[in-house]
Amino acid sequence: MNKIEHIGIAVNSVKLAGDIYEKLLNTAVYKVEEVASEGVKTAFLQSGPNKIELLEATDPDSPIAKFITKKGEGMHHIAFEVNDIEAEMQRLKVEGFVLLNDVPKLGADNKLVCFVHPKGTNGVLIELCQSIG
Amino acid sequence: MNKIEHIGIAVNSVKLAGDIYEKLLNTAVYKVEEVASEGVKTAFLQSGPNKIELLEATDPDSPIAKFITKKGEGMHHIAFEVNDIEAEMQRLKVEGFVLLNDVPKLGADNKLVCFVHPKGTNGVLIELCQSIG
Repeated sequence: MNKIEHIGIAVNSVKLAGDIYEKLLNTAVYKVEEVASEGVKTAFLQSGPNKIELLEATDPDSPIAKFITKKGEGMHHIAFEVNDIEAEMQRLKVEGFVLLNDVPKLGADNKLVCFVHPKGTNGVLIELCQSIG
Repeated sequence: MNKIEHIGIAVNSVKLAGDIYEKLLNTAVYKVEEVASEGVKTAFLQSGPNKIELLEATDPDSPIAKFITKKGEGMHHIAFEVNDIEAEMQRLKVEGFVLLNDVPKLGADNKLVCFVHPKGTNGVLIELCQSIG
């Protein structure tokens, strides 16, 4: 695994949270993107080589809506950049980690992604992500 | 603010969690350090330019012990690297953020640190950290 590509933060409103994180990080939201398949609207801010991804539910049955109902706003996942997501998925399976996706799926920000079950990683939802093209 | 210096993860045992994160990140824990003043034992792993800090409570009254009692193991804070922590604290105060420290304090890994109250940052505990010397 390479750098932390981004930290995902579940929020009630990417507009309101975007205003806060723009002040906190002293930088502007550079992209807002809706991922209909996941029921989320996302906003991204850059901090050096890393990103903050703010996640707002657009569907009450989406994972982000359920997370916020259960835990409130807060840190949702850590995404690590990988060069070859399929090789990394295979390596983690051999190590005994439980993957939440059998094959990489299309995520926000032009990435192939796969999630690792948080029960095997001390309660932390881990995402692998590989840039496309 | 610069890069994400590290992500802090509250765990029951840095030894057991260290074994897991060594497999996950495919790299070894490079430092274990106790910060008596905070009632924690920490273990660090590197992932590209970023670090993962595993945090185990050594005192039942420590913030990490209380966090785990309330929420279980999981992501605890995001630390951003800053060049001048006092200037950044002043900037954030003017922006309306509530700081949990009036002056920078000594943290793990040879850093001066200051925390920002999570109520003003969508439930996320933010740490500023500046390397010493």
